Amino acid sequence: MKIAITGGAGLLGRKLAEHLAASGRLGGKEITGLTLHDVVPPAAPEAAPFPVKLLTGDLPGEGETDRIIAERPDAIFHLAAIVSGEAEQDFDKGYRINLDGTHQLYESVRLAYADAEKKPRLVFASSIAVFGAPFPEVIPDDFHLTPLTSYGTQKAIGELLLADYTRKGMLDGVGIRLPTICIRPGKPNKAASGFFSNICREPLAGKEAVLPVSEDVLHWHASPRAAMGFLTRAATIDPNLLGARRSLTMPGLAVTVGEQIAALRRVAGEALVKRIRREPDSFIAKIVAGWPRKFDAARALKLGFTADASFDDIIRVHIEDELGGKIAA
Amino acid sequence: MKIAITGGAGLLGRKLAEHLAASGRLGGKEITGLTLHDVVPPAAPEAAPFPVKLLTGDLPGEGETDRIIAERPDAIFHLAAIVSGEAEQDFDKGYRINLDGTHQLYESVRLAYADAEKKPRLVFASSIAVFGAPFPEVIPDDFHLTPLTSYGTQKAIGELLLADYTRKGMLDGVGIRLPTICIRPGKPNKAASGFFSNICREPLAGKEAVLPVSEDVLHWHASPRAAMGFLTRAATIDPNLLGARRSLTMPGLAVTVGEQIAALRRVAGEALVKRIRREPDSFIAKIVAGWPRKFDAARALKLGFTADASFDDIIRVHIEDELGGKIAA
Repeated sequence: MKIAITGGAGLLGRKLAEHLAASGRLGGKEITGLTLHDVVPPAAPEAAPFPVKLLTGDLPGEGETDRIIAERPDAIFHLAAIVSGEAEQDFDKGYRINLDGTHQLYESVRLAYADAEKKPRLVFASSIAVFGAPFPEVIPDDFHLTPLTSYGTQKAIGELLLADYTRKGMLDGVGIRLPTICIRPGKPNKAASGFFSNICREPLAGKEAVLPVSEDVLHWHASPRAAMGFLTRAATIDPNLLGARRSLTMPGLAVTVGEQIAALRRVAGEALVKRIRREPDSFIAKIVAGWPRKFDAARALKLGFTADASFDDIIRVHIEDELGGKIAA
Repeated sequence: MKIAITGGAGLLGRKLAEHLAASGRLGGKEITGLTLHDVVPPAAPEAAPFPVKLLTGDLPGEGETDRIIAERPDAIFHLAAIVSGEAEQDFDKGYRINLDGTHQLYESVRLAYADAEKKPRLVFASSIAVFGAPFPEVIPDDFHLTPLTSYGTQKAIGELLLADYTRKGMLDGVGIRLPTICIRPGKPNKAASGFFSNICREPLAGKEAVLPVSEDVLHWHASPRAAMGFLTRAATIDPNLLGARRSLTMPGLAVTVGEQIAALRRVAGEALVKRIRREPDSFIAKIVAGWPRKFDAARALKLGFTADASFDDIIRVHIEDELGGKIAA
């Protein structure tokens, strides 16, 4: 089977490409080709047992989404997006990439596979930001879409379009509402949720981190490793199990910032925790206040998606996968 | 105050223009100008006490939405849409007008009023088609958006965009989810819901009507007169009463096709009822089966929107407003 990934230079795109290269298979089928696309040049995963095509370009640019699917992939992972903080500050850019780019990708698939009997699986990386306050204590899978950010609005629209194109038999879409990915490796990005990772990753690397909100902020997390499980499960799930409702809230861990810090203390010691500096930021705090905190992901759990076991585990996964097992002194 | 109406040649657009011309005021303020826009030439309402500008063009055409708001209206009624049956059959046309046209109108407002302290009220005619089965028996205002038609998808996206543009302070949006308008005057249009009106209007005009579904089909109705109340209330409501959730399910009447026919019998006699011919249509029946039937419109009722009292009244309103009080023998 052939695969294409948008946002191939991003965290999840890179990890997914590496995961596919290491396995050589997806859903029991041999992978025969991979296309990676991003606005910055993506890197080919090491030692891939299949040809890798690398594309760089502007997602909603003329003909760009046609190029992405030129090899007629059987599965498309649409991970490209302007992140929440940036989409909130650059209104035009957010709509151009997250709405126009997404819609154009669906259109390209619709036209390219018009005569195909089997439509490609399109896995859309949605977000819990499609939900906005006020919330019940635990948010059910069928809570109404009430985004309070432009990013969340764009993701909600991506879900609605995905369902309609799927209903019309133009593609075979599955949307997964990802928890905040924690611990993100690498450098801080422009996502307003960045600090959830920073306060763990930076101390583990011997650096100082800034905490812009209070310790009682509750949030919904999944490790990059859990996210790989979500993506591959979404790519291979029997569509008959889904029905008309094509987007699912992924299972995560609901923990407070204080619980994150306690886990860090348990796994890595008190000295590291001292590297977290409190610096309240009302812009971040306001965005975060509108975010959902805790979900009942019963539907996804029943469909075979699995969460991390604990935040201690999330930290251990990071130390293992990103730091070669070593914590900075 | 100045007003603009898209879909100005449609049923609601015409009725609203006539209503505004007859009153000369909206929300206690004198109307000083009206722009009517449609893809077919709209007609100026009779004896309007203010200047009326008539525009004809393609809503998402180059510069078209800028023309619509060139007079800098204080209130914009966005009523233009490709109806449900047509949007389902002509996928491209539906998305082009209902999504691209709507988004472009919001963009024009955003740019034209960028420096204005007070943003215009934009009343968006949404639809109960934003909801799709399976439903609870009575659908609450905060039921999740699960459209099962392209039309419903496009309306749901229009609501999401309206909320985001409003949240960002770019316009002052209010979305109203209209019940099916019944009895629609004039000729049948391409709406899949057309038969709900046809089975009353045609017999009242001495003609035969086709009923494509069974008598137990329950549906949510409002008269054109009630719709005028919804539109003017939406144009004048205090935005502070709404908060972030800018779209409201309008109050309607939940009646079955059988109850409609019984009301027709009571108001106009058994002979008229005989003019309804049963001709099951699986295409229509399938669309209608995915539609919502009955709502709890508590939020709108609390905010001063009011429904028709009975289906008998809906028939009487039609006879009074459209037939000069006379029923065809």
